[in-house]
Amino acid sequence: MTLIECVPNFSEGRRVEIVDEVVATIAAVDGVAMLDRQSDAVHNRSVITFAGQDAAVAEGAFRGVQVAARLIDLTKHEGAHPRMGAADVVPFVPLKAEDMPACIAVAHAVGARVARELGVPVFFYEEAARREERRNLAAVREGQFEGLREAIRTDAARAPDEGDPAVHPTAGATAVGARAALIAYNIDLASRDLGLARDIARSIRERDGGLPKVKALGLALDDCVQVSMNLTDYRVTSMQAVYAAVQVRAVQAGVEIRRSEVVGLVPQDALVALTRAALKATDFSVAQVLEARILETLV
Amino acid sequence: MTLIECVPNFSEGRRVEIVDEVVATIAAVDGVAMLDRQSDAVHNRSVITFAGQDAAVAEGAFRGVQVAARLIDLTKHEGAHPRMGAADVVPFVPLKAEDMPACIAVAHAVGARVARELGVPVFFYEEAARREERRNLAAVREGQFEGLREAIRTDAARAPDEGDPAVHPTAGATAVGARAALIAYNIDLASRDLGLARDIARSIRERDGGLPKVKALGLALDDCVQVSMNLTDYRVTSMQAVYAAVQVRAVQAGVEIRRSEVVGLVPQDALVALTRAALKATDFSVAQVLEARILETLV
Repeated sequence: MTLIECVPNFSEGRRVEIVDEVVATIAAVDGVAMLDRQSDAVHNRSVITFAGQDAAVAEGAFRGVQVAARLIDLTKHEGAHPRMGAADVVPFVPLKAEDMPACIAVAHAVGARVARELGVPVFFYEEAARREERRNLAAVREGQFEGLREAIRTDAARAPDEGDPAVHPTAGATAVGARAALIAYNIDLASRDLGLARDIARSIRERDGGLPKVKALGLALDDCVQVSMNLTDYRVTSMQAVYAAVQVRAVQAGVEIRRSEVVGLVPQDALVALTRAALKATDFSVAQVLEARILETLV
Repeated sequence: MTLIECVPNFSEGRRVEIVDEVVATIAAVDGVAMLDRQSDAVHNRSVITFAGQDAAVAEGAFRGVQVAARLIDLTKHEGAHPRMGAADVVPFVPLKAEDMPACIAVAHAVGARVARELGVPVFFYEEAARREERRNLAAVREGQFEGLREAIRTDAARAPDEGDPAVHPTAGATAVGARAALIAYNIDLASRDLGLARDIARSIRERDGGLPKVKALGLALDDCVQVSMNLTDYRVTSMQAVYAAVQVRAVQAGVEIRRSEVVGLVPQDALVALTRAALKATDFSVAQVLEARILETLV
């Protein structure tokens, strides 16, 4: 059994009836668990989260792209967020670290089907990238819909991975990818020293030579300061690893960690990894979690 | 949604075809996830583990008791383990701490149905006990099948909670209960000093004034010693609490914890509790675990 998640972004965040139809189309697929939807009017963009067995999620993703291509017209789209397609990005996310290859396979299969059946060219990104330079989504989307219309035809370096080198006239192009689950994780310090939070953020984030797969900012809250983080691959740097790193630096400054906060959803696998580390329980596995066994049997 | 587990013990551990039929009968109930079965020939007893939504688990438990009452004859049963019924004990276990009341309700409903439809008298034990002195299963089962045949008729204190004061002629009586999930948890010390493991076990177990809901023994393994534990209510004493307690005592003796080991299955809730403690993530909840959300949507 391979449980995966899909978090597609669609270029519509204002007309709720269109987002409703995309959500309903995906949710109608047997075996799809619809988990979340978020629309942003300024970005004019919606993020939908669903999960299930790989085959069900693949079907849901395809149908979502299909209905978006029918309902969303990029030639009339404006919004603050960069975009190149009606279904702009379609990342598949493994719920267990070892299922990344399955997610890459699903990305490639769905991408090929989108190009073949819908006439929307597809670029593969992050772990599903077929060219190293396409791992980075920003590079794939450079110039956005308007710029890509020309570049995809004239620049061989911008030719799609699947489909003809021409954007769909209204649905543009879609980036299909595979990536690790992202964990949004914040640590509050028992201090109002924003400089300290910023210093710690700088010292632990990858951009400044800190921990790999960690993005971090220092923020001031009402009554304390916070190190606000995105862990883009908990297999590489886990919640307990950043907790320990922040703790060391806080203690050096004579400050305690007040609390920490997991924002949104995390895969069970991240908790199993934390249990292994916290208890030196090196052999502990997801297969020992009752709910994982129930999922395996009933879903 | 109320996911619960049931871990009935049946008085047959030698004739595999009978255990097969009990397992198949339970597994045939729609929505039941069959998780484990263990038979012991010396005990002449089998332990079956299944889970699902409360209604499905209640139906599975009833049908299991029904088929056991038909196939197992206590007048011909012998084995090392105390027993009083074909279906000897039927405990319901919540997967989330807050669902204990639901498990007690299921125990009472299934117990009433067993007495009414099968003519097997029922005693409620542990958290489902209706008399304080019946919390303890050993007290309920005193005298076993052979002794209870007489006592149930003549001693008002031994009258069942459901059904007539007479054992079923071949199926005996059944104890139906509710209890917290039991976690079997072992900690290996980097030492061959069995005395130390026994001292630590003694100092942390409830029986000798240690941590509540902890049973512990010191054992010698091939290359080290082990503190082997049963945590009978992880809500009261968690894995990380016993880990910390063992660590303090080991360090005092100049010994390190080598590793620890979770034996068998644990509910996700126990990992969420550990995450809260390890990261001071006080607001973290099961609802934030992706797999829990999928279960809620699809099961």
